Amino acid sequence: MSEKLRGACLFAQSGGPTSVINASAYGVFSTAFAMPEITGVYGAANGILGVLNDVVYDMRREDPEELKLLVNTPSSALGSCRYKIADPEKDDTDFRRILDTFKKYDVRYFFYNGGNDSMDTCSKISRFMQSSGYECRVIGIPKTIDNDLCGTDHCPGFGSAARYIATSMAEVSLDTKVYNTGTVTILEIMGRHAGWLAGAAALAGLSGEAPDLIYLPEVDFDMERFIREVSEIYKAKNNCLVAVSEGIHYADGSFVSEAAVSATDGFGHSQLGGLAARLAAVVKERTGAKVRGIELSLLQRCGAHLASQTDIDEALLAGKTAVEAAVNGITDKMVVFVREDRGGEYACRTALEPLALAANAEKKVPREWINEAGNGVTQAFIDYAAPLIRGENRRVTENGMPRFAKLKKVRPE
Amino acid sequence: MSEKLRGACLFAQSGGPTSVINASAYGVFSTAFAMPEITGVYGAANGILGVLNDVVYDMRREDPEELKLLVNTPSSALGSCRYKIADPEKDDTDFRRILDTFKKYDVRYFFYNGGNDSMDTCSKISRFMQSSGYECRVIGIPKTIDNDLCGTDHCPGFGSAARYIATSMAEVSLDTKVYNTGTVTILEIMGRHAGWLAGAAALAGLSGEAPDLIYLPEVDFDMERFIREVSEIYKAKNNCLVAVSEGIHYADGSFVSEAAVSATDGFGHSQLGGLAARLAAVVKERTGAKVRGIELSLLQRCGAHLASQTDIDEALLAGKTAVEAAVNGITDKMVVFVREDRGGEYACRTALEPLALAANAEKKVPREWINEAGNGVTQAFIDYAAPLIRGENRRVTENGMPRFAKLKKVRPE
Repeated sequence: MSEKLRGACLFAQSGGPTSVINASAYGVFSTAFAMPEITGVYGAANGILGVLNDVVYDMRREDPEELKLLVNTPSSALGSCRYKIADPEKDDTDFRRILDTFKKYDVRYFFYNGGNDSMDTCSKISRFMQSSGYECRVIGIPKTIDNDLCGTDHCPGFGSAARYIATSMAEVSLDTKVYNTGTVTILEIMGRHAGWLAGAAALAGLSGEAPDLIYLPEVDFDMERFIREVSEIYKAKNNCLVAVSEGIHYADGSFVSEAAVSATDGFGHSQLGGLAARLAAVVKERTGAKVRGIELSLLQRCGAHLASQTDIDEALLAGKTAVEAAVNGITDKMVVFVREDRGGEYACRTALEPLALAANAEKKVPREWINEAGNGVTQAFIDYAAPLIRGENRRVTENGMPRFAKLKKVRPE
Repeated sequence: MSEKLRGACLFAQSGGPTSVINASAYGVFSTAFAMPEITGVYGAANGILGVLNDVVYDMRREDPEELKLLVNTPSSALGSCRYKIADPEKDDTDFRRILDTFKKYDVRYFFYNGGNDSMDTCSKISRFMQSSGYECRVIGIPKTIDNDLCGTDHCPGFGSAARYIATSMAEVSLDTKVYNTGTVTILEIMGRHAGWLAGAAALAGLSGEAPDLIYLPEVDFDMERFIREVSEIYKAKNNCLVAVSEGIHYADGSFVSEAAVSATDGFGHSQLGGLAARLAAVVKERTGAKVRGIELSLLQRCGAHLASQTDIDEALLAGKTAVEAAVNGITDKMVVFVREDRGGEYACRTALEPLALAANAEKKVPREWINEAGNGVTQAFIDYAAPLIRGENRRVTENGMPRFAKLKKVRPE
């Protein structure tokens, strides 16, 4: 199993950035630096595109202190991409270019950090290398704020986004109670197909400021029911706080954010605002309440100042585990997290699962973790998510502002 | 000057909440508790409305440890209002009710925490009490994220909002550079009449992520010039980051967010999104660039997790100064901050200025602190604002979430 394979490693980042994706990068680099088998440590620019176009950086040329700052630097420091690679059996053009780059730098270890698409890319690259007779170990490192990767308890990136969402929800909740005039406030949260992030809004309850209603994409949305539920709470409390996933859709599958506007929506023209603005307008039209729609937008995925240390530690560990596994002879796997039962105390260990487990599949919030009315999450959801947002991060600030890693990005000579 | 006046003190919060308004409340309460002259310490619910309607709380009945948490609890813990009081010479109904409440609780010290409207209210109450022969000392405590109060170097609340804005801008900037496809990102920032908050986006430069363009309400907005400026940067850098004040207006005074939509705007129908969504749509229509509008909305005024310790300390000091001044015989004044020249090192002391100085006036960003092109701020603005965002706050968290003060709000017996 553990046969020695000498050669360089190449790491790339894919998909939407997170607050901790660079912590995984640091986990890979710092572990690889210490491995005698690993003769070069490279990072690809813009994910697989950098591999395809031979734009790679020599990570050994970076200042070690600066590289360490990656741990608290949000967004993808090497750049990312949303490039969907072809099936090598149908078109191997891309794969031959990847092989050229691998050969040029003697890349024997390839680590790809991303979501389900990226695991699919890993899987295809691995297959192609094997069929070409080029020995290269390929390990996927999970990443996504959406938390929708199959095969792992949770994904690095989710805990920090969840903490950002829960904290913002709690703070907004306090703000909306200030005046004696009532309001309906709707917070729009990312998650196109899975409601993990929207559900995380419930963690505001840990500060005593839980939202009244949460709508997840796992439950078909019904505008009339929504209006009724909001109205009832607004009448009872003179205030209503709603969390809504961007991915909510009607029973026919059409996204509420995109569906053709009907007369019952209360307005007959197209509009530019997002889902929150749209729902706020409907509530205003139908109830007369003062409304406000707030879209957390990019802030929830780049707000590293609120990253959970648990998430950072696990993102680092995921990178470290990938390198150690590959050096120990493992390939074609994805690093996953397995929650351990320690009598209520949170603990997770890493494990390795086949890439195919995650590739192109989406893990949804189980229906039993959503309340019966379909407008909130259960205690089981909260018990699952709460440990992931714990831990104050140890970010570096200068003059009150974040000190991000500044990479030199030196091309190999 | 310093004649002894025995009696109760009453404190109220007004206007929009901030991240540190409750720190001023704690400054008032904790200082008042220690004053032998002060026989009772009350807080009014919902600003002057609580005084008018006799809804006040006995702050001595609160748990001292819980009260201390006010320092890091955003939003107005006692509730706020936007009630504009009549002129006592024209209609003294409200003032007679205020006098009734003052007499009922023997209130001899009144502290009102708010912006320019609140200073006007203070001034009117003081005049009425004097003309009624009721001895009561009245001190205004400044508060506004907008930083538009005259007579003071800056306002408590601004530094924390500025830090939130600058940090978010820096993080969003990193996020927008991740893909190799270019984008134009427009961040909408509060400030209806003054550009202090929008200008604070420039502080993202301290993290190396300054926005390319900043539009403030102090300079008339020109849509064609805006499109040209964005296009030029987008063409040169394949990316453009814009900060824009919600208060930008055309030369005729009409707000860009509300102005009748012209053909050149690229769309001829009304819309629901805010200014950022609107400008993003125009840029998309005119340049074809990928665009994103982000509205910081309430988050920037309630994001206490990013409050600057400098701001917290000064908000506390403002409350303390108000009580000490009143006990020492001073009335009819507002607490202000005076920046001291200590050879580049930031230092501020409090002083007292007539209420009338701030009442109903607005301090704008000086034109010479805005660049010549009217699309950014100068180094002088940055030198002014940078010290105000410094200092990591010492908030209390539990399980990764903010621990807010939970007040019992006990009515006096």
